[in-house]
Amino acid sequence: MPPEYSRHYGCVLIWPHRRDSWQYGAYAARKAFAELIGIISESEKVVVCARYEDYDSARKTLPDNVRVVEMSSDDSWARDVAPTLVTNGKTIRGIDWGFNAWGGLFDGLYFPWDKDNKIARKLCDLLDIDTYDKRDFILEGGSIHTDGEGTILTTEECLLGKGRNPHMTKAEIEIMLCRCLGAKKVIWLRRGIYNDETNGHIDNICAFTSPAEVVLAWTDNKKDPQYEISAECLEILQGSTDAQGRKIKVHKLPLPDPIHITEEECMGLDDMDGEPTRTPGERLAASYVNFYISNRAVIVPQFGDKNDSTAIDILKPLFPDRKVIGLQNSRNILIGGGNIHCITQQIPFFKQEELT
Amino acid sequence: MPPEYSRHYGCVLIWPHRRDSWQYGAYAARKAFAELIGIISESEKVVVCARYEDYDSARKTLPDNVRVVEMSSDDSWARDVAPTLVTNGKTIRGIDWGFNAWGGLFDGLYFPWDKDNKIARKLCDLLDIDTYDKRDFILEGGSIHTDGEGTILTTEECLLGKGRNPHMTKAEIEIMLCRCLGAKKVIWLRRGIYNDETNGHIDNICAFTSPAEVVLAWTDNKKDPQYEISAECLEILQGSTDAQGRKIKVHKLPLPDPIHITEEECMGLDDMDGEPTRTPGERLAASYVNFYISNRAVIVPQFGDKNDSTAIDILKPLFPDRKVIGLQNSRNILIGGGNIHCITQQIPFFKQEELT
Repeated sequence: MPPEYSRHYGCVLIWPHRRDSWQYGAYAARKAFAELIGIISESEKVVVCARYEDYDSARKTLPDNVRVVEMSSDDSWARDVAPTLVTNGKTIRGIDWGFNAWGGLFDGLYFPWDKDNKIARKLCDLLDIDTYDKRDFILEGGSIHTDGEGTILTTEECLLGKGRNPHMTKAEIEIMLCRCLGAKKVIWLRRGIYNDETNGHIDNICAFTSPAEVVLAWTDNKKDPQYEISAECLEILQGSTDAQGRKIKVHKLPLPDPIHITEEECMGLDDMDGEPTRTPGERLAASYVNFYISNRAVIVPQFGDKNDSTAIDILKPLFPDRKVIGLQNSRNILIGGGNIHCITQQIPFFKQEELT
Repeated sequence: MPPEYSRHYGCVLIWPHRRDSWQYGAYAARKAFAELIGIISESEKVVVCARYEDYDSARKTLPDNVRVVEMSSDDSWARDVAPTLVTNGKTIRGIDWGFNAWGGLFDGLYFPWDKDNKIARKLCDLLDIDTYDKRDFILEGGSIHTDGEGTILTTEECLLGKGRNPHMTKAEIEIMLCRCLGAKKVIWLRRGIYNDETNGHIDNICAFTSPAEVVLAWTDNKKDPQYEISAECLEILQGSTDAQGRKIKVHKLPLPDPIHITEEECMGLDDMDGEPTRTPGERLAASYVNFYISNRAVIVPQFGDKNDSTAIDILKPLFPDRKVIGLQNSRNILIGGGNIHCITQQIPFFKQEELT
């Protein structure tokens, strides 16, 4: 599995539509998506999947060099429903993992999820690449990170939870990850960001910026329940070596002050099955780690917090060949339950004659 | 506009679903489509558009090397709703004509047709090519043939009918065709196949097999209303020269004996708005001219008629570099109102790096 910082063909996103996930019939989120897509499309091809009903909105809103394709979906988290693309250097294939909305009937976030579960295979057809059918194993793209040199980063909270593959042991899951992703070592953090409804996806708390180098979401406030989680991650990372035997350099990326959804924001969200999906005052899982690495930019969430610029300043030297750009509008994505990384999925670059 | 007999990247079709067009919930037609797709996919890429509801059926039925993509549609006539692809030798672009179901509110065949009318643009996005927006001009791909050397073949019955562009004169339409298709001359036949509900599409009565050479659907039975129509076409063709000033060589391709839909076949079709779409005994617009030229084959409708093999024997020497293959199942397509050519649309070959 090539790392996100290797060169891409492009990026796939899903045009948001779910009225119980996204404010104001998803129109607020669409503005943020469009801004993000504009930045990504400056240095790579962007493919946007839109439901039939939303196709005209997407086509009208997005620049002409963006490919808009029709595709049904239950929600808009491309990171988690798109295929994981792997390559042997000659050809590329997509892994079609099982998807059950982050926990299925145990603690999943919506029902049904059948449309989302079909997206990975459809995207492989769209790219005209072969598929590995792994639908009997539940995995979301946001729950794994790779350094491209044999190391996988993930969290126990997510992969060992009861909502995914409770019939498998940790050792069995590790073997599965290594075999499928061509990796040699899995580094297990314990938990992800506090109150992250994905059961602690790795991509919100810790990310490789280059081999043997990561950023870790951090707070110095010991009263914040996040402190203990991040401190535990730091300890694990500092006590680990990667697949190549290297120590891992950890850069602390400060979190914004806790962000809570307002009553007005909740008013813009429909109920799901008669129940609100968010309640006023609920803490949202905000984190600067949820950035996307495009060919020439790193696009970082911004929350109107004093740490917005600090996060960008920390990331800049870690990506010397890329512009580090803040996305001001990212609160509109956060309300949906994730951020920039969660709504994007890179498509590795490979020879064009192999693509079609 | 490259001719059908130039080398293709591939071919697009739409997986049939309409229960008032296709027998037995479209399952009979799907068999024929699958057989056809199998043959075409031996020498070029096939892209099949399936509605969300039909995606699993298409994916299950079709070979893995066929790309199945999700796309909404009103019916399944790729020839008429896909973009007309034109090239300047360096890049390729798609013309998005207006589509109104063969005559709109005047004498169109179904209502509404909005999903079909969006397919051309969507296919351009799918191929990642630019679009010429010509939706203010109504045209179906099946109403034009090109020799690739400046000549367009069409019929007055279709292009000058009241259901398409009644505000335009013949001269204006001719200018429009030449400008859009990069052509210099339009040869106008008068009428198409008898009882053809497309208002006499050219692709059911006459087709280029190479520059300055055509096949013309023919009957020697003077009592058949088709006789007069074909004789008139022959006269026009023999009195015409092409864009290069050449006389046109006409090969008569005999028609099968008149084919009428049976009562049992009608029983397999749903009504449309409470009215049957076919009545027992109705003559169907069967013709061997409705073949598709793939990179290495010419696939020809077969009707269980004594002329089935004659048609193939006539076509063989006209396509010395291709296998001429009969599709036995084509009555199941004919019942829908067209045949092999109507359900296919070639995608010209162009450099792969320009494709995606």
